[in-house]
Amino acid sequence: MSEVINRSQTKEIIQDNLDYTMFSWSKQKGIDPIAVKYAKGVYLYDHDEKRYIDFSSGLMNVNIGHGDQRITEAVVKQMQQVSYVTPSCVTEVRGEIGKKLAEICPGDLNKSFFTLCGASSIENAIKVARLHTGRHKILTRYQSYHGSSYGAISASGDPRRIPADSQQAPNFIHFDLPISYRWNYGDENLLKESVHQLERIIAYEGPGTIAAIILEGESGSSGCLKYPKGYLQQVRRICDDNGILLIADEVMSGFGRTGQWFGFQNHDIIPDMIVMAKGITCGYLPFGCLMLSDRIAAKYDDAVLPLGLTYSAHPVSCAAALATLQIYEDDNLIENAAVMGKYVDEQVAILRQKHLCIGDWRNTGLLGCLELVKDRETKEPMAPFNAKPDQMTVMNKVAARIKELGMYTFVRWNYIFIAPPLNITRDQIDEGIAIISEALKIADESLK
Amino acid sequence: MSEVINRSQTKEIIQDNLDYTMFSWSKQKGIDPIAVKYAKGVYLYDHDEKRYIDFSSGLMNVNIGHGDQRITEAVVKQMQQVSYVTPSCVTEVRGEIGKKLAEICPGDLNKSFFTLCGASSIENAIKVARLHTGRHKILTRYQSYHGSSYGAISASGDPRRIPADSQQAPNFIHFDLPISYRWNYGDENLLKESVHQLERIIAYEGPGTIAAIILEGESGSSGCLKYPKGYLQQVRRICDDNGILLIADEVMSGFGRTGQWFGFQNHDIIPDMIVMAKGITCGYLPFGCLMLSDRIAAKYDDAVLPLGLTYSAHPVSCAAALATLQIYEDDNLIENAAVMGKYVDEQVAILRQKHLCIGDWRNTGLLGCLELVKDRETKEPMAPFNAKPDQMTVMNKVAARIKELGMYTFVRWNYIFIAPPLNITRDQIDEGIAIISEALKIADESLK
Ligand SMILES: Cc1ncc(COP(=O)(O)O)c(C=O)c1O
Ligand SMILES: Cc1ncc(COP(=O)(O)O)c(C=O)c1O
Repeated sequence: MSEVINRSQTKEIIQDNLDYTMFSWSKQKGIDPIAVKYAKGVYLYDHDEKRYIDFSSGLMNVNIGHGDQRITEAVVKQMQQVSYVTPSCVTEVRGEIGKKLAEICPGDLNKSFFTLCGASSIENAIKVARLHTGRHKILTRYQSYHGSSYGAISASGDPRRIPADSQQAPNFIHFDLPISYRWNYGDENLLKESVHQLERIIAYEGPGTIAAIILEGESGSSGCLKYPKGYLQQVRRICDDNGILLIADEVMSGFGRTGQWFGFQNHDIIPDMIVMAKGITCGYLPFGCLMLSDRIAAKYDDAVLPLGLTYSAHPVSCAAALATLQIYEDDNLIENAAVMGKYVDEQVAILRQKHLCIGDWRNTGLLGCLELVKDRETKEPMAPFNAKPDQMTVMNKVAARIKELGMYTFVRWNYIFIAPPLNITRDQIDEGIAIISEALKIADESLK
Repeated sequence: MSEVINRSQTKEIIQDNLDYTMFSWSKQKGIDPIAVKYAKGVYLYDHDEKRYIDFSSGLMNVNIGHGDQRITEAVVKQMQQVSYVTPSCVTEVRGEIGKKLAEICPGDLNKSFFTLCGASSIENAIKVARLHTGRHKILTRYQSYHGSSYGAISASGDPRRIPADSQQAPNFIHFDLPISYRWNYGDENLLKESVHQLERIIAYEGPGTIAAIILEGESGSSGCLKYPKGYLQQVRRICDDNGILLIADEVMSGFGRTGQWFGFQNHDIIPDMIVMAKGITCGYLPFGCLMLSDRIAAKYDDAVLPLGLTYSAHPVSCAAALATLQIYEDDNLIENAAVMGKYVDEQVAILRQKHLCIGDWRNTGLLGCLELVKDRETKEPMAPFNAKPDQMTVMNKVAARIKELGMYTFVRWNYIFIAPPLNITRDQIDEGIAIISEALKIADESLK
């Protein structure tokens, strides 16, 4: 009886969502969403009490895991004092989170401009880079994602920019960067060729016209497409040689995800600005930050900083961020990400022996991606880049099976992401890997 | 003794904010910010226990007043269940706020796409308008503000777009719209001429190239620059005749501010989309919404909606919005805004007799703006449009005096905004008007 009530309640909840709200990046008909009632640690629970292990930490942002009530406490405390002040006012918590971020960031990256999300941080990074250099072009990688507002989506090399027509914001140049798995001439050549290609493009475009190169600290939703070893150091050098700023987009790779505070720390470089969001509050509240070096910020001592948004330095978001950063430290999450990342690598190595459909596995810390192929020899992807619905038949079946077996994770084209919360345990990794293994049977079957 | 501790604590708080965080739309040196410790109703309190009456509701967003713990309760309740789900999941609260907004909005404006702020709602409105019409140009008013991301700032007719270089997002056309105070040929002629001018511009640009006209429901931070009476109805007609969408930006004028749920309701029109933020959560948490008509949304039943952001339909923001809308109704705030707006009008009429520096007063509900002039005959503004620092001498003194006397409000060029929380009382209005009256003496003095 109570189950019947539950079911009809669940149906009503889903129907209200479908009737009155629009869903991102999808058709509105035929959606079969999970109705989340509550969440705890690495698990989501729906209104029918079905449990899902969250193997992509939401959208790779819930790094500290779900339902951590330490954040709630910090939020309540702040809301009992003051929830909103205009960005021209100061609050204790704004100073505290600013100071804390300056401690975490290397070099002279000490000045926070607070935003709401990844896209708004990127937009502001682009503006600052253009103002700082007096140049207009922005170079980014094909197969990268930087957000969906006009500036951010134009910066993105992701096909999500195509329907919005990227030419609606000009002066973004994308360059191609092959990955080791699909490069036929050896790894050192990959580095050499990638650097040469970038140097050529800069020459073609004219170094004096290029304000900045924006790169993800580690590639995320495009498929964890690793940089050739040593590449980012070469990019840093090229930037320095040409007066170009290097901006690290750490929205997805930041805050412990790769076993370091920031993804670029795996590459021994220091960028000129850092774009932050996601892990800075782990999704508990919207928040983002553009971190500027003292050098870049100095100009605005005596010149107007022409940036702003109603919710810059929102006190409650600042409080959530401060509590979140404390949890990374108190719970040793960054160390755990590195250790558990190795464990995932080991388990995937075993998986790979069992499942012929696995072509490649690319991972840093807990930012990993399985790439499925139709054939290990030809490396033909199970679904191509920017696959159309009718090219997704097998992958959709795999995704549906994953969900049925009690896992939520990000599946895109021929990719299955493995990026669980950083506090995941070995047992929970085993649980998730077992589900993926079971679901991959469908893909294996399709090879025959 | 405790006062001494307080003072040095306050100094440290301010110093941390200045050392580690960047301030919007200003030079970073020489800022003298209010250090807000707590806030309640129409008052802010700083760390030295000085009280400020908030006469602009923050940035015209804290419509329900500060420190309302009913929002905190709703936020805690949600955070105890689930703080974050990806936008592809559904939650009970998402359906509820979607349904509630559909109830509030007139016509077939029933489909919410949830965002984080004004700018992200505008960006998405522009994309949807272009996709819906297959046209690329967007018409907006000079002297309007729509946000600071590249799409939104290019849509803005505000000078804040100039440093970012509005040509970094093309296909935005701005048109000029005189206001009654500075128009010499009578009010009916103003309507006639404004409509003719808009029709001419549409003809010059080619109606078939124009996707949408975006207009604030009532003008806000540009100075509450009223539309000629009947103007928006004419714009609605022109849009219908030419297959152009009409988008109402209700970020500032929405949610009771003008004595109606939405500013456009003062003009008896229904737009095709509504852009919402600010009053939807009153700043307690970041949130925004693009409201689509069923007709526009229908296309995405079977086509991919190419919009998205990590924090679309954030559960905690949804919960804050739902609680906020309840408060408007429970506390009769919209009615109160209308009544108190009339009372402000009366008090300003008296003020005007006392202070020769007042040139114009433009107000709807509680969205009002005093315009100061050097001379009532010539109407020369006390500080010009986009005034440089050295043109702000008198206005800066007035602003400093307002602050000194215990008021926070938005002062821009020759404008002083009067837009307090909608739950303000007559006594509190008297208190605020008295402060402004005292400060205006400085401006009066300067006339001599
Ligand atoms: C690397 C990167 N940058 C920027 C963004 C955009 O962030 P948001 O969705 O918060 O705007 C994303 C989102 O997935 C991202 O992965
Ligand atoms: C009419 C209007 N639209 C849009 C915006 C931008 O909102 P946000 O600062 O939340 O991006 C504002 C901000 O003041 C506004 O007044």
